[in-house]
Order: sequence, then C-alpha cells, then structure tokens
Amino acid sequence: MSAVLDALRGAVGAAHVLTDGDLSAWELDWRKRWRGRALAVVRPGSTAEVAAVVRACAAHGTSLVPQGGNTGLVGGGVPDASGTQVLLSLMRLSRVRTIDAANLTMTAEAGCVLQAVQDAAAAQGLLYPLSLAAEGSCTIGGTLATNAGGTQVLRYGNARELCLGLEVVTPAGEIWDGLAGLRKDNTGYALRDLYIGSEGTLGVITAAVLKLHPAPAAQCTALAACDSPAAAVALLQLAQARLGAGLTGFELMGRFALELVERHFPALPRPLAPSPWTVLLELSDTEGEAQARARFEALLEAAFVAGTISDAAIAESMQQSRQLWHLRESIPLAQAEEGLNIKHDIALPVSRIPAFVAATDAALERAFPGVRLVDFGHLGDGNLHYNVQCPAGGDAAAFLREQEEAVNALVYDAVLAHGGSISAEHGVGALKRDTLPHYKSAVALDLMRAVKRALDPQGLMNPGRVL
Amino acid sequence: MSAVLDALRGAVGAAHVLTDGDLSAWELDWRKRWRGRALAVVRPGSTAEVAAVVRACAAHGTSLVPQGGNTGLVGGGVPDASGTQVLLSLMRLSRVRTIDAANLTMTAEAGCVLQAVQDAAAAQGLLYPLSLAAEGSCTIGGTLATNAGGTQVLRYGNARELCLGLEVVTPAGEIWDGLAGLRKDNTGYALRDLYIGSEGTLGVITAAVLKLHPAPAAQCTALAACDSPAAAVALLQLAQARLGAGLTGFELMGRFALELVERHFPALPRPLAPSPWTVLLELSDTEGEAQARARFEALLEAAFVAGTISDAAIAESMQQSRQLWHLRESIPLAQAEEGLNIKHDIALPVSRIPAFVAATDAALERAFPGVRLVDFGHLGDGNLHYNVQCPAGGDAAAFLREQEEAVNALVYDAVLAHGGSISAEHGVGALKRDTLPHYKSAVALDLMRAVKRALDPQGLMNPGRVL
Repeated sequence: MSAVLDALRGAVGAAHVLTDGDLSAWELDWRKRWRGRALAVVRPGSTAEVAAVVRACAAHGTSLVPQGGNTGLVGGGVPDASGTQVLLSLMRLSRVRTIDAANLTMTAEAGCVLQAVQDAAAAQGLLYPLSLAAEGSCTIGGTLATNAGGTQVLRYGNARELCLGLEVVTPAGEIWDGLAGLRKDNTGYALRDLYIGSEGTLGVITAAVLKLHPAPAAQCTALAACDSPAAAVALLQLAQARLGAGLTGFELMGRFALELVERHFPALPRPLAPSPWTVLLELSDTEGEAQARARFEALLEAAFVAGTISDAAIAESMQQSRQLWHLRESIPLAQAEEGLNIKHDIALPVSRIPAFVAATDAALERAFPGVRLVDFGHLGDGNLHYNVQCPAGGDAAAFLREQEEAVNALVYDAVLAHGGSISAEHGVGALKRDTLPHYKSAVALDLMRAVKRALDPQGLMNPGRVL
Repeated sequence: MSAVLDALRGAVGAAHVLTDGDLSAWELDWRKRWRGRALAVVRPGSTAEVAAVVRACAAHGTSLVPQGGNTGLVGGGVPDASGTQVLLSLMRLSRVRTIDAANLTMTAEAGCVLQAVQDAAAAQGLLYPLSLAAEGSCTIGGTLATNAGGTQVLRYGNARELCLGLEVVTPAGEIWDGLAGLRKDNTGYALRDLYIGSEGTLGVITAAVLKLHPAPAAQCTALAACDSPAAAVALLQLAQARLGAGLTGFELMGRFALELVERHFPALPRPLAPSPWTVLLELSDTEGEAQARARFEALLEAAFVAGTISDAAIAESMQQSRQLWHLRESIPLAQAEEGLNIKHDIALPVSRIPAFVAATDAALERAFPGVRLVDFGHLGDGNLHYNVQCPAGGDAAAFLREQEEAVNALVYDAVLAHGGSISAEHGVGALKRDTLPHYKSAVALDLMRAVKRALDPQGLMNPGRVL
C-alpha cells in the first residue's frame, strides 16, 4: 500500500493525499446510509494531476472512486469498507475556464459547484438551467456523471442535454479533450453521452462545456387543484399546447405530501384549500410579466371551464412565486421530519401515470394496511418520487428495516409493468446495482458489460457501482 | 456464398433476397459518387427477420450494410465493390406502431419515411420537428443512424435529441428492446446515444420512440441584410435573447449563394436588394400570427437601430414564408446547375464563425485565385455548408478532380484551428473515414475502436465506415 501512496504523493503533493484524521466528509454519504473507508482521499488540483492519479492507481491495481460534492443519493461516490480504494475528490478543479456569450457556452471544471455555475451565467444575463435541491453543494462533474435532472428538465433537459463537450481522464490515465462547444458534431460515436450518466465507472470527467440559454424576461408560478392524476395529465397537455416552451415547470403533489408540509412547516402559506392533487406550474416568458400573467390566466380559465381543475391561484409577485416553489421543495424535508421513509425515483410514460398510481396505491394499501403515500414529482417529465411512509403512529425505523425490500419489489414490479424505469434521475450507484438486473433488459446489461470491459479492462473505475 | 444465400432466403423468404437484375437503387448512392455491388439485397419485413438476417450473416462471416432511403451524403449506406456484402434494406419496416399524444411520443419503425412521420404527427395536431431536404425519401432509421440535423435543430435539436428510445438488433442477432418512452431514465450507460450516429457499425436500428412537440399556433419568416458574419452573429444573439425558444430557424446565406439562385431560378422573388450576407429567421409562436409579426417587427427594428442589419422584410403570408425558405433551399440546387463543386459540412462554435470565414475565404482566394465561395448554412447551430465552386468559366470537373484534396485540407485545417468539426450533420461514412484521424483526437478514436471491438467483435457491421 505504501508504494501506491508514494506514487499518489508524487502525483499531487503530500498535502493533498489524506490518510489520517476524520475523513468522514468524503467517506460518509450525506444521507448517512453508506460509510466507507478509503485507502486515501486524494485531491488533485488539475486535469494533469487527475491523470497522474489514475495512472498511479492503474500501475498498482488500486481502484478509484471519483467524488464531487458528495450529495449523491445512491451510494455511488463513497468508497467501500475495504480500506483499499482511493477516494478521488474533484473539488479542487473548481475553475470556470471561459464563458462564450455568443456561443451560449461555459467551460467549467468538474469541481465547480452548480450554484456557482448558475451565478456565473446569471452575471452575464444568461441561464444555466440545471436546478436541483443540492445545487448549493453538488458539482458539475457529479451532475454529469449521474445525468442529474431536477425541476427544469421539462423545458431544458437533463444534465445530458445541457452539455456540449467533456474533458475526461480515461482508465488508462490519458486525457480526452472533447471540450468543443459545438451544437452539431457527427464524427463518430457519442463518447460524451457514454460518459454522461456512467457514474465514474468508465473514467473521470474533469471539465465540461455547458449549454447556456438566454435568461427569460419574466417567470410566473401558479397552483392548480385537480381531482386525479388523469386530470393533472390533461392539464399538462393543455399547458404544453398553449404555452409551448414557455412551460418550464410542472410539478405534481399529492394531498398527503402537502399535509406533511402543513404539519411540519405551518408558517408556509397555502393559497389553495386541500384537494386530492395539486399542480405547480411555472411559465417563463420572453415578453415580460404582464404577458406571462395573461397567458397563465387564459390557460387556467380554459382548464377550469373544461373541468380539468377545480381551483387555481397565480402568484402575484416573485416572492409569492418563491413561496409556491418552497411548498414543493419542502416535501422531502417534511417527510424527514415525519420520520424515516422509503424513497423512490421512478419514471413512467406520462400517459401511464394515472393507471400506475391507481394500481400501485391500491396494491400498497392492500399489502401494507394504513401505509401513507407521499406521491409527488416532476409530472412533466414522467418522474415521480413515489415515497412510502409507515402507517400513522407506527415505528418508522422498523417499517423501513422490515418492509423496504417488499415495498420496493411491489413498486418496481408495477413500474416494469407500466413500461417505466426504477431510476429516473438519481442513478444506480451501489443502491440499485443488484436490483437493476431484475428490471432491465438482459441484452442491454450485456451491452453495458461489454462497454465496461472494453473501456476499463482492469475494472478499477468505481467498481461495484452500476454493473 | 450459396450457403449464406440459402440462410437469408430461410430468414426472409426467397422473394426478399434479390441477387439478379438492376440493383442500382440499392447499390448506387443518389449523388452517384459510390457504386457498389452487393452479394444480395435483403428486405426483411419485421424486427425478428432482421435478427434472423444478422444471425445468418454472423454464422457465415458475411458483412452487412444497413440502408434506409439511400439518401446519405457520405457513402455510408451502399455496399463496397467486392460483391461479398449483404445490403440490408429496412424499407419494409415502415409501420408507425403507436402515437401516444399524452406522452408526446410516436413509436415508428426504421423504414418509415421522415415525411410520413411528420404527417402522422400533424394529423394529431402534433409536430415531429426533424426537417431536411431529403425528408420525402429518407427514413427514421437512417436519420437516427446518422444523427441527422436540418433546419430546426436550433430549437428542437438533432435526431438524437428527438429520440427517447430504440429497438436495435445487435451484431450477435439479439434484439434489444429499448423502446421505453421515458424522458428520464438513469439506469446505466447511454446505449441509445451510442447507437444514434454510429452509422450502422454497431448494430441495426429497427424502431424508435420519437419525441413529439405541440404544433406552434403560428410561424413567421423574415429576411435581414447584414454586412458581415459578425453582424449576423450579433443578430442571432439579439434574436435568441428576445425570442427565446420562439426562434426556430436562423439561416445564413452569402451573396454569391443567392446570386446563383437568382441566375438559375430567376422566377423566385427576391424581397431584399443584394447584400454581402442575408439571414433567414423563422419565429414560431404559441399565441398566433398577430403576435408573431409584432415580435418580429420589434426585433428587426431594434437590430436596425443598433446597426446590426441594413434592411429586412417580413413575410406577409404563409405563402411568402414558403418562398423565403424556397430561396434558402434552392442554394444546393442552384449550385448543381452551376456545375460540380466541393461540398463541406462543418461545425464551429458560433462565436468563431466570423474569424473562420474571414481567414478561410482569404486563404482559399490566395491558394485558388478566382475561386467562388458558396457560404450558407444553419448559423444558429454553428453549421456551415461552406462550399467551393471553381473560378468562373473554369472546368468544374477538372477543378473537382485536381483540387478537391487540397481544398479540403485547407478548409479542414482551418476548421481544426478554430475548434470545429469536419462533419456537422452528414456523418463520416466512407467519405471522411480516412480523413477523420487527421482531425479528431487520437484518444477519442482509440475509445471508439475499443467500443467497436467490444460490440462487434467479428467486425461485420458496415465495415470500412466511420472507423
């Protein structure tokens, strides 16, 4: 072990090879579900140093776990418990290299915090639209390695669609400079897309060219009350037809999800009376606020007349808009206050969500009487966080311990039956690695294994994740 | 050879294994630059039959060339001259399997003609935005295998961004059913993206889930006169800032390109006086025609005041809009009338196009005095068809024969120097296969070769193309 540590110290300097003291900031994931032990935490300061680290590990047969802001939800970025893996932190690669306003691109290093990238774009009057709860600490490299989603996917796409090029250190320690800021480039296989979402198992993303957008002139938010998921899907269709690309957010919230918010954050305003389902809509407009409001009013009026919604409220100000988003964003926090729960991150064809929710709610209630369902998510993307809380007054920890496997099996079987995916935006990591083969095509998994063997023949890049 | 032919007849029926008569519809590309000879033209009628064909070829070590509408521009879809390759035509897989309006998706087989798919979407009030010159005969499979671009990429993306899932027959003859219509799915490597743009070298695309959009309520087209590419880029920035996703087309046309149109198609109206550069803008609006026109007028007024444009004309009707597009679309036809020429399909960061055009125009004029430059293309995507016509009165065929290599070297060296790509939307095929290694990173090419070896170890899928 000391030979590889010497090589790592040679690569990045002894000060950036941490082996002693409290390394839990890197070894423990933030949800505290995975605690590993690293041979060393290595903090390179440049792409060349990352390459040197990878070569040192390859030479000594030492496996590597790349890590950004350590905000992942699937245990993909913390070392295993063996004490033999190098934790490669990208946090020192934190430079925005360039912003090219005429090309609407930014070249940013992997360790840039998402919010810093959003801010750097905003300082030029531009928008980097990726937006998610962890944006204050997650990194560009992490969002790309996991193809992160969030609340603006409906209009702007996942991290994948917001990336034009990558710089990657391959498992052999070579640097692929694919940082071209091109909107079209048909010169061979989509290596960029292969690395995006590969969770550090094929190489290390060190920098990226990010796609920027002009900042919208105005944004407006509304809540609408629906009787059923089918009505919410009908509202989505109407909103897409009338607002087109102006529709930048469409979030669904079940009644119990908002009850939890009210219970644990009673100070938050609730502009609508409780209803079975509530939708948050966001409209971004290039013309200004007056037009944005007028378009929203016309849409909601039409939906009301059609019987699609029973009530609605449009935010009167940016502050009210923020409060409506705050309601939505408080659901996971309210769940945490309520106690441990079983989380899902599933995707379905939008059209099949009503049938999925009806069938799966009923099946869960039959199998686990009294179970409480926290249904919410990005309906516009077909992505539900379909979470399950133990019966009221029950022992949440015991429910999680004893029933998680059975709940997951029921939910994932229903997802499969409705043509969905068991990971919409969080990835596979360690959490779903062993579950995935039950729910993904064997042909696809064989193709993935062939790619993995071809690009990482030593199997040293984040082993035990994804595959 | 007769053993493999027997196996193919067993797979698809003797009537669909063509070996005699005039096979030039499959063996000769439509630009008549590549004439091959196939062992047989095989026309399977289902995905299962495609798989049987691939297995038969694999068993006999026979290579395969998949083909859609045979409209490719890089010789990627016709067999070589050896008479040993099977031409696999996908044209009989021509069914639209389903349209899911609430999910905004269509599942279409590889042999569906692009225009038929556009029409099927339009019949539901929806839009499949991929649009290109060959749309009347090119197929969905071909557009995905080459990641086709066209005129709406600025707003809707390439074929890649318009595809949610694929069905693929692997080189082993297995069927990967990846036809989920999901907007988010983070369960492993981006196999879909790996197949898109791989030009039939990794397997055969047999069907796809296509992303649909709501049809815009109104479209409006305008022409604007600019003094320079820099002014055109400034207009693009202004248009993107003010119109956002409403800007669905932004095409640049050089003076000589429009002179050729005037010379060969004098009946086409020319609403603007000649200027060094002309831009065609298209605005799609969800609110209707009156608003579309008003937004266009405000934009062009602002551009005029800023000195970005010197003149402009907004189409007064759908018919006038079509005429403006006709001007743009007539450039390649006018070039053909003028005589043989050297075509390019290059991409650059939008911000670097002015410097590229200035430097490369000058270098070409120095190296080939009197040469005439037909500069036009999708400026909004950084994609130029930067074509070169021989000096006036010269021998076009001789110029092409004697100078094409030198012209290409000069242009591609300039593309490389300006951070661009030598194939923006046409692909690599046979045409650019041997050129590519001079202009693409060796690390990237090694990664591509590793993927090719892993997924097609026998090397039977469209050999000699791309790599």
